[in-house]
Amino acid sequence: MPDFKDVKLLGFDVFGTVVDWRGSVARHVDKVFSSQGIVLDPYKFASDWRSLYQPAMERVRTGERSWVPLDVLNLENLKVTLAYSGVDATRFTAQGLNDLNKAWERLAPWPDSVAAIDRLKRKFAVGTISNGHVAGMLWLSKFAELHWDVILGAETAKNYKPRPEVYFRSAESAGLSIEETAMVAAHNDDLEAARGCGMKTVFVRRPTEHGPDQTTDLVADDECDIAVKDLAELADVLEC
Amino acid sequence: MPDFKDVKLLGFDVFGTVVDWRGSVARHVDKVFSSQGIVLDPYKFASDWRSLYQPAMERVRTGERSWVPLDVLNLENLKVTLAYSGVDATRFTAQGLNDLNKAWERLAPWPDSVAAIDRLKRKFAVGTISNGHVAGMLWLSKFAELHWDVILGAETAKNYKPRPEVYFRSAESAGLSIEETAMVAAHNDDLEAARGCGMKTVFVRRPTEHGPDQTTDLVADDECDIAVKDLAELADVLEC
Repeated sequence: MPDFKDVKLLGFDVFGTVVDWRGSVARHVDKVFSSQGIVLDPYKFASDWRSLYQPAMERVRTGERSWVPLDVLNLENLKVTLAYSGVDATRFTAQGLNDLNKAWERLAPWPDSVAAIDRLKRKFAVGTISNGHVAGMLWLSKFAELHWDVILGAETAKNYKPRPEVYFRSAESAGLSIEETAMVAAHNDDLEAARGCGMKTVFVRRPTEHGPDQTTDLVADDECDIAVKDLAELADVLEC
Repeated sequence: MPDFKDVKLLGFDVFGTVVDWRGSVARHVDKVFSSQGIVLDPYKFASDWRSLYQPAMERVRTGERSWVPLDVLNLENLKVTLAYSGVDATRFTAQGLNDLNKAWERLAPWPDSVAAIDRLKRKFAVGTISNGHVAGMLWLSKFAELHWDVILGAETAKNYKPRPEVYFRSAESAGLSIEETAMVAAHNDDLEAARGCGMKTVFVRRPTEHGPDQTTDLVADDECDIAVKDLAELADVLEC
């Protein structure tokens, strides 16, 4: 077993690591679009919508824009994606747009996630260190039946990963030194930033997060403390 | 059943409502004091320590002092209580004082709490709206096996109940309007403040929170939406 004896909190990235955002968002928008007679590739729509996520957060990270929670960015990006896809956003009421935006609170967990996190929870505190906001994580977790001990991450720090303050503030908010925490993610850039702050790092392989032709994050960087094929393997490795 | 159909989040006061702070703190300090040959009434010590809690928070509420989390106040109050009790605080290392202060993260739940909250969680989001800070709630809940969906309250608002912003910010952080939330507490003043903000209110009778001679909060104010003898009865009333 890797040396995790001082680790008290496992902090999880959520979108892509714990839940399948692409398939879930595609199913959610497909249902709404179909009911309105809008013909679109829902997987492409999900990917296009998601492609605006990093640039939108980057404006907050650089200080160009002050902190706003992720649902605000997602709603703005939804309107851009609708326009880009040739859909007149005025077809939807404000409530209709909000309902579409709630796609991000209706994401299915990967098949291993729920049971493995319950196992890990016996030995560690388990929390989210996501760019999602508290309300988004709360309702997503109720939907997906994910049983966190604590919701940390972007809203705790009022900034977005991979800014170091998100990792540091999350540890501090849990009453821990950064060395007592580990980051669990399917994304090497997130883990690199967490490692730079002093966290242990766990890479989870999610080779279809971005669809069948995914080319990124197929393997862990060498620096990761643990690399696993899913969270069940992580529970095994950590003897939970 | 009372009209709770719009309520999505039950926000719980914790100290006294969900856990027995007096008995637990007394047992914790008694063990430490006994090991050091210090002879004290541990129940009186617990009550004396707790008696400094409201005045310490009041300085933050009034703005005389800027926000500090509850463990900071508890540690300051511990030193005062030791002095008041005739114990030389320099007998303890900084670590020893911190260990004593951790009494507040080692509180036993009332016998009905854990199972009832698990039942309520099936139908509602359940969260803390406590004056405890996030780390304190996290580790207390791990210790007591309380399974919250979210930790809200004082640290979310950077102020202390019964200041209205604690209730409002907790609802907002959960993505809800205040009318979609209910406060569950054993203290009428907490419930009165929550009601003033627009929350539904649930009084839970904890007649020995302050010991066998308790004279306060033995009955609910008439304005409470629900009054129950314990949380199991609340789960019954709300048909969970």
